[in-house]
Amino acid sequence: MQFDRNALAAATALCALAAQPAMADEGMWTFDGFPAEQVREQYGWAPDQAWLDTVRNSAVRLTGGCSASFVSPNGLILTNHHCIASCLFDNSSDAKDYLAEGFTAQRREDELTCPGQQAEVVTSIADVTGDVMGAIGSLSGEALTKARDAKIAELEKAGCPDTEATRCQVVTLFGGGQYKLYTYRKYSDVRLAWAPEDRAATFGGDPDNFNFPRYSLDASFLRAYENGQPVATPDHLQWNPRAPEEGEITFVVGNPGSTSRLWTDSQLAFEREVRLPVTVATMSELRGRLIRAMEESDQKDREGRDLLGGVENSLKVYIGRTKALNDPGFTEKLAAAQDDLREKSAGNAEIGDPWTTVDEAMNAYRALYYPLRFTQPSGDLYGYAQTLVFAAQERGKPNAERLPGYTDSALPLTEKRLLDERPIYPWLDELTMGWSLSKAREYLGVDDPDSQLLLGKESPEQLAERLVGGTSLADPEVRKALWEGGIEAVEASDDPMIQYALRLVERQRELKALSDAQYSGPLAAAGAKLADARFAAYGESLYPDATFTLRISYGQVKGWTERGNEVPIRTTMGGTFERATGNAPFDVASAFAANEAKIDKNTTYDFVTTNDIIGGNSGSPVIDKAGTVIGAAFDGNIHSLGGNYGYDGTLNRTVVVSTAAVQEALETIYPASALVEELAER
Amino acid sequence: MQFDRNALAAATALCALAAQPAMADEGMWTFDGFPAEQVREQYGWAPDQAWLDTVRNSAVRLTGGCSASFVSPNGLILTNHHCIASCLFDNSSDAKDYLAEGFTAQRREDELTCPGQQAEVVTSIADVTGDVMGAIGSLSGEALTKARDAKIAELEKAGCPDTEATRCQVVTLFGGGQYKLYTYRKYSDVRLAWAPEDRAATFGGDPDNFNFPRYSLDASFLRAYENGQPVATPDHLQWNPRAPEEGEITFVVGNPGSTSRLWTDSQLAFEREVRLPVTVATMSELRGRLIRAMEESDQKDREGRDLLGGVENSLKVYIGRTKALNDPGFTEKLAAAQDDLREKSAGNAEIGDPWTTVDEAMNAYRALYYPLRFTQPSGDLYGYAQTLVFAAQERGKPNAERLPGYTDSALPLTEKRLLDERPIYPWLDELTMGWSLSKAREYLGVDDPDSQLLLGKESPEQLAERLVGGTSLADPEVRKALWEGGIEAVEASDDPMIQYALRLVERQRELKALSDAQYSGPLAAAGAKLADARFAAYGESLYPDATFTLRISYGQVKGWTERGNEVPIRTTMGGTFERATGNAPFDVASAFAANEAKIDKNTTYDFVTTNDIIGGNSGSPVIDKAGTVIGAAFDGNIHSLGGNYGYDGTLNRTVVVSTAAVQEALETIYPASALVEELAER
Repeated sequence: MQFDRNALAAATALCALAAQPAMADEGMWTFDGFPAEQVREQYGWAPDQAWLDTVRNSAVRLTGGCSASFVSPNGLILTNHHCIASCLFDNSSDAKDYLAEGFTAQRREDELTCPGQQAEVVTSIADVTGDVMGAIGSLSGEALTKARDAKIAELEKAGCPDTEATRCQVVTLFGGGQYKLYTYRKYSDVRLAWAPEDRAATFGGDPDNFNFPRYSLDASFLRAYENGQPVATPDHLQWNPRAPEEGEITFVVGNPGSTSRLWTDSQLAFEREVRLPVTVATMSELRGRLIRAMEESDQKDREGRDLLGGVENSLKVYIGRTKALNDPGFTEKLAAAQDDLREKSAGNAEIGDPWTTVDEAMNAYRALYYPLRFTQPSGDLYGYAQTLVFAAQERGKPNAERLPGYTDSALPLTEKRLLDERPIYPWLDELTMGWSLSKAREYLGVDDPDSQLLLGKESPEQLAERLVGGTSLADPEVRKALWEGGIEAVEASDDPMIQYALRLVERQRELKALSDAQYSGPLAAAGAKLADARFAAYGESLYPDATFTLRISYGQVKGWTERGNEVPIRTTMGGTFERATGNAPFDVASAFAANEAKIDKNTTYDFVTTNDIIGGNSGSPVIDKAGTVIGAAFDGNIHSLGGNYGYDGTLNRTVVVSTAAVQEALETIYPASALVEELAER
Repeated sequence: MQFDRNALAAATALCALAAQPAMADEGMWTFDGFPAEQVREQYGWAPDQAWLDTVRNSAVRLTGGCSASFVSPNGLILTNHHCIASCLFDNSSDAKDYLAEGFTAQRREDELTCPGQQAEVVTSIADVTGDVMGAIGSLSGEALTKARDAKIAELEKAGCPDTEATRCQVVTLFGGGQYKLYTYRKYSDVRLAWAPEDRAATFGGDPDNFNFPRYSLDASFLRAYENGQPVATPDHLQWNPRAPEEGEITFVVGNPGSTSRLWTDSQLAFEREVRLPVTVATMSELRGRLIRAMEESDQKDREGRDLLGGVENSLKVYIGRTKALNDPGFTEKLAAAQDDLREKSAGNAEIGDPWTTVDEAMNAYRALYYPLRFTQPSGDLYGYAQTLVFAAQERGKPNAERLPGYTDSALPLTEKRLLDERPIYPWLDELTMGWSLSKAREYLGVDDPDSQLLLGKESPEQLAERLVGGTSLADPEVRKALWEGGIEAVEASDDPMIQYALRLVERQRELKALSDAQYSGPLAAAGAKLADARFAAYGESLYPDATFTLRISYGQVKGWTERGNEVPIRTTMGGTFERATGNAPFDVASAFAANEAKIDKNTTYDFVTTNDIIGGNSGSPVIDKAGTVIGAAFDGNIHSLGGNYGYDGTLNRTVVVSTAAVQEALETIYPASALVEELAER
């Protein structure tokens, strides 16, 4: 699954650097930098501005970390099943397991509210590079990040006075080479209209994840609401339930979360030597704890499923990235690209030596990384507490002095995520919090002051049990009272989780300041220089690293060669029954089994294209020359996991669930005649 | 803990290469190559031959993977607690938890039999390099390994006609540069005389493992028996319960399991890029599954403890090695050593280019590694089945044609390990087998033929449940009948685990043959050339990589500097009470708490020396100039984890439990007056 729940965190924490000239089909292009000439040269045709505008206005970002698109005039949104699995999960109970059973709203008023979810459509993009650079001036270190963040807070606030209906975000592109103000129309009431059974979407489970041939109905429909009514969306993509043709040009429009395509050597070395090893080791243990815990009862099996799915998906991504960065053939190419840029920049006094700045920043970061990582325990309840404590402290400051997540422009979504009602399973919070605290002690060491701050005399398990057992933060009313009560209420609270968050907050701020001074600040300064170097060396037609903002990629329907064997472009729905073993996760979804005779087995199920995507792109519409939607991207193949660092058009593939398959499901397997009619509207 | 349950497997699977000139205190020296002059130069004194002979005759190898020493004339053996934890564990039941409670035999006849354990003392070492090299001649690939193994089987059989009391082993040193025939006096009846509570030995648990300062009573006593009587051991070390002095010379005599000190670049790259990542990721998941399973009941907590301890210990080793190989300062030194040898060997036609041979072998091994690793499922019951199947097939062949574990010289220990009665916990076998099969599918891929051979249409969990639930191999009588029934009995068996082992055996043999042809054979040939290169470049006074054979290391009692702070040489028993938090694993053992007032808190507890050791050395006597034993080595500090690849005398330390502390425990905490008397005998 392309959805990476860490994509956003990664995009924030790691400063992406600028790109080099793109290979055929490579690139996650901004709409204001679409390489029309390049596309026309390769495919003999390129979209015009009207085509691009319609597509852009139809593209939806989901704040849960996915992409989507409007596909009817009535706010109907196509996305992946795995992008809304949390919504099914949060609406489920022991009595009703929507995730397992799927969901079809018989009437619009039955559509299910999705906690924490918000849909956003870009309405304008303005270049604010001059404003931000002017504020930064010749500052460095923490002063640089403070001045930058203050200017960003100011621009965002000024850009979106209507915080009910709009959201402004200044996006850093090319690692600090450009700053752009994105304005979004936002819809904070998002509901679920249709989703198949979990097994239909996850047939093959973790073993088949990131693989192809694939047999997955990873699709669902949401609907955007405002004032209790479906939103009118005259700009939308036309639904086109046809099979793809080999070689036809395809466009993927969505929000790739984060890439690291042109990191310098020392950034890649940090990834390979520090971040990936600790991430894979600790998450693997969490996976093991969860797998076993879920075997303890049917209830735990249900309650843990969403988290385990996310953990296994992320792990597969990180293990794939580890393999890529340990593949000498792959890393040689990355090094050669670095060398080329250095050579072309040699002697350019304006550029100087940003590489050494990056090296020094990464060295400093190595010393800060474990403390930064491990002084933020895991768990939803702790997360609520931390947000309440930071928000209470930050909201007392002027907008320009607040931390990024707590500025006026950011607060509405922070508040929504905090206050939306959703189920909390204490055993799961205890498990994740206990695990993260025990890993903190393991990696920081027993005698480390941060370990002692985190644990005191308690054991990780004991502390997690006491905090999770004693807190009332699972109750949204309690969170609301603390949110509204502000700093006085938070500091006076005897909730042990709030008290624990208060115990950690000063150290967390201190570490952030150190990181700004020694890492983020220098990287931002170096990033601007490296961007200049790239533009000087390769011209302006470059695409920036992904930042969970709207991009368009072009490519074609095409298979690839795997160990000498041709992988075909598509699977058929009938293939599911051939691949099935009867045992999970290769068991056929019950509605598939029940309707086997009725299903048109020749229907194209999933297919592959050469489009260049990454986590965050999940749910992106796959659009044909005519501008109609023929599928929803839901995955990459196994080779695409190295795509975080570099694209290889001979191997990297986007995996798409076809509109043809979704149509077949809507008509035959999970019938939804109202949706069929709505999608057919012109 | 220095005991690495994979040390032996690693030593077999990976061909160790030869050494370079040793730094001060560096080296795991063979007794026939002890660098007396070097020691005299550094310390102004060196042991003479009589000293060395006594020490060698007192040194014991434990086939469980540890070292030890005779410390009385009556077969009394000093080793670590963690080396006999399995014995306590195997003797425990729901009614009696020896591991938690510790054990003191009130009378000799109460001493507890240790399943699978055998004590061995080297009685002679003969150079058989000429014989083996003669057999190899100019052969290569699989023909080389076959000819070599046939000659080894022949030499071992001829050297030890009395298989009841002796064991012969040909050891490959310097990666194929030397072959030596070790003859051992063996004692296959080993019993436990004394062990403290688990918490006394493992105070601080996994968090403190490989750390210092340390507060661990990681000591115990075994006794060797023959014909039901304690063995007379006139050659033994004198017990000396005194505190160590800073700077005094110390010797560690034991059996380091395996090192990789002078692997070539491509061997280290394979380790860093392939073996360590997959090992850490998969074992971390096993750790997580186990941790959670053990929380399900007190019984599971007890039954899983031994395995979890081993897994966590190994993981800490592998994570430490990962950090070492990802530390540029460390790897630069390794690369420089490689470069130096290459330069010194340049133009030597006799040596040629073994480096390229190794590179090619490692490339071939990369393709074979996952199949080799994952077609051997985990679990004690599967292990029994695999041994029975291989033994049945191999025993029908002439001695010289059998696989190494099944030659006449190896069969007695194989048989003992198979037939010794010990408890099997089906849930634990199901857990480990299900885990390993699911990892096989993950790493090989669902559609890989080996995955399909392993699983068929079953899921990993289902298959593990069916096999573990259906097998009778937990019963030693059933194993005995199949062992004695030979190939007919095995092939006729309807035991599902036996049938499963039969299903895998041909593929396992095929993979071994491929590995011999493409990896082991070429490496053995290159190893001999690389050894020649080292001897030519640096002279003959080198130590070979560790091979779980007897070595002696010299060093001194000495602290080190950690981030600017001096780490003192010792801890005191009183320090335990200061470090205790009251919460596991920092809770004081109950007998410590009960006797706190009586314990002499100034007693030296654990101390550190510069001796160069590694996993397998656990339990080794630490011997002073006078030849008396002043401690048992039980661990290295965290820096020593990189010691697998290279020794750094400024940082690497051996961690020792002092005889003074053991004496205090025998007198005051876990009283054993008979042992106190026996140890005092002269």
